[in-house]
Amino acid sequence: MVANDTPAFIYLDHAATSWPKPPEVIKAVIHAMENDAANPGRGSHGMAVRASRVLFDTRKAIARLFHVANPNDIAFAMNTTMALNTAIKGFVEEGDHVIATSVEHNSVRRPLEMLKKTRGITVTYIEADEQGGLDAKQVEQAIGPRTKLVIVNHSSNLTGAMLPVAEIGEVTRRKGVKLLVDAAQTAGLVEIDVAAMGIDMLAFPGHKGLLGPQGTGGLYIHHDLDLVPLLHGGTGSQSESIEQPRVRPDRYEAGTQNTPGLAGLRAGLQYLQQETVANIYSREWQLAQQMIEGLKGVDRIRILGPGQGEPRTGIVSFVLEGIDPSEMAFVLDQHYNIAVRSGYHCTPLAHQAAGTLETGAVRASVGCFTAKHEVDTFIQAVKEIRQQYS
Amino acid sequence: MVANDTPAFIYLDHAATSWPKPPEVIKAVIHAMENDAANPGRGSHGMAVRASRVLFDTRKAIARLFHVANPNDIAFAMNTTMALNTAIKGFVEEGDHVIATSVEHNSVRRPLEMLKKTRGITVTYIEADEQGGLDAKQVEQAIGPRTKLVIVNHSSNLTGAMLPVAEIGEVTRRKGVKLLVDAAQTAGLVEIDVAAMGIDMLAFPGHKGLLGPQGTGGLYIHHDLDLVPLLHGGTGSQSESIEQPRVRPDRYEAGTQNTPGLAGLRAGLQYLQQETVANIYSREWQLAQQMIEGLKGVDRIRILGPGQGEPRTGIVSFVLEGIDPSEMAFVLDQHYNIAVRSGYHCTPLAHQAAGTLETGAVRASVGCFTAKHEVDTFIQAVKEIRQQYS
Repeated sequence: MVANDTPAFIYLDHAATSWPKPPEVIKAVIHAMENDAANPGRGSHGMAVRASRVLFDTRKAIARLFHVANPNDIAFAMNTTMALNTAIKGFVEEGDHVIATSVEHNSVRRPLEMLKKTRGITVTYIEADEQGGLDAKQVEQAIGPRTKLVIVNHSSNLTGAMLPVAEIGEVTRRKGVKLLVDAAQTAGLVEIDVAAMGIDMLAFPGHKGLLGPQGTGGLYIHHDLDLVPLLHGGTGSQSESIEQPRVRPDRYEAGTQNTPGLAGLRAGLQYLQQETVANIYSREWQLAQQMIEGLKGVDRIRILGPGQGEPRTGIVSFVLEGIDPSEMAFVLDQHYNIAVRSGYHCTPLAHQAAGTLETGAVRASVGCFTAKHEVDTFIQAVKEIRQQYS
Repeated sequence: MVANDTPAFIYLDHAATSWPKPPEVIKAVIHAMENDAANPGRGSHGMAVRASRVLFDTRKAIARLFHVANPNDIAFAMNTTMALNTAIKGFVEEGDHVIATSVEHNSVRRPLEMLKKTRGITVTYIEADEQGGLDAKQVEQAIGPRTKLVIVNHSSNLTGAMLPVAEIGEVTRRKGVKLLVDAAQTAGLVEIDVAAMGIDMLAFPGHKGLLGPQGTGGLYIHHDLDLVPLLHGGTGSQSESIEQPRVRPDRYEAGTQNTPGLAGLRAGLQYLQQETVANIYSREWQLAQQMIEGLKGVDRIRILGPGQGEPRTGIVSFVLEGIDPSEMAFVLDQHYNIAVRSGYHCTPLAHQAAGTLETGAVRASVGCFTAKHEVDTFIQAVKEIRQQYS
């Protein structure tokens, strides 16, 4: 590497947000801002109707992706955290028992810890194994008479390991317990069929695998569930009522929605539909295998998560003996123009399970535009840094 | 008017959302999506740092506008409703007494009505007069020993009347009660100095007077107040803690923020700074006067809100005897290509005060790009419609 020559930028932080977006996404945002960005549902004039249409079309495309029969069972949110807070705080009541896992993100753990104090709930965190996996039987064993909700991360944002959601859904359905799935790392990457998998609520981001802009996301809510809304306010409907309307999606969408962002999300979903989720998964999985294969040859490295050949997302996290993860990320950024993430990734329990709570880890995550040669360059960079620190 | 010839589009729904945005706003959104839209605060690589910088700069610009000393006392939200829910649900406790007004939006009224049931709070709604005004003395008289919070709409989204926030702030400060102001209709249009006006919390939209994209907004929170966060989740900081960090702005900003939207908002704020809030107010006020003057000549019209010459925002609402407001809005849209809003505007109490609860009203609202000749065309259209229905 020649120091004066900035190498081409390589983005390996897709688990935080996908970049770049398909050009159609940016075009759709511009088009909406220039032509359709009146206030959806707040007027009957042509532009407000077009804005409502943007929301309607996006909602329909999401419903199709997740096999949701009625698009109105999808509520938009500004991010997955807001969707998870809506689900958890809106559904869990005084004294309930909730089951979650040790690979949950802080957007699940922190609301639960808060409800322990304020609503006297109890929480069982099922332990994942060192590779980040767990068994549906563990969930079944943890279910008790007061269990109301099981929350699982579809895939860990640290290890890339996939949790057996369909098997867990079979258990929760049989036991009469509801299932909330955090699809932050899988929406758009792994096939999700809420009915077939027994999912009662599904929280998803718009800006990761669905390739939309930041500021978008949402929550699928099974039509039989009635949550206490997170936000109370204007919906453009039933203005005379002092209560939040019961009609969906208004019930869970108070205030002005992010019309341009949702227009971009719709374009991202169109791109996904063309490419197909199966193809994107296959491509990212192969890139992850390439990365693991290459990193295995690095001296004194420990790669977290599932072994080669096993199902996983495009996340590969690792620690190098004697090199602080934040230093590794810094050198990758400054000297190689490669963006990865170091630290705890908002999931300390997963680090505990993986044995990396002391140090954190380096996380490299590929996306649907990552090229094979970029992964090669990254592996080479890690090898060079390893040598410099030996 | 020739039926086959579509007349130029006239947008008079600025109270719902401003349109068009300054071209710089769209450019900033594109630039952020193409160059800076990594996940802010979630990585140390260059692009994540640039995303954090976008948030920092926008926060600083908002703080400057509202005379907030520390930008970290501003928390972003997806809309004003989310900001108001954060303030109200995070601050009001079991058994508190809250004072609000009859011109509040449903984004204040519905959270309060919900808290009446769930936290046993009591609420006094101070009655505005027929023009939408009220006196700070009414607030003072309503304050009792259990009063914790006063909430006022800086300006009604129905009548355009301004409430005496500074006088109310003098009262609340003297009485040791906190003041929350809903600046949905005034942020960017009226000078707001939170310190001078005694405002403890200020909820504002990004997509109205601040000229940013939808999906943006925020809440100023006085540094002495500690709210229960509306969202619990990842902040990219103190990941190992099971509690929401106390450090601001992280405490009130869980999950991925809307980086492109906030980049656009910053551009809107720059535009505002160049034009100055005082000039924009003066221009919109004059357009509103022009509109009132012109509409006064329409047969059997009743114009709501303050009389000519009095302070007001760019909102002019009215009812025409014998013409349903929704029909008026429909004809304006279909035959004249003019966008206004009809109905209740999420503020039924204000309609009650104005005596229009049975019918709703037509609301025309100007913005900083509205031209005088557009207002003339609108007045002429209303006159023609009036004649057709006579």
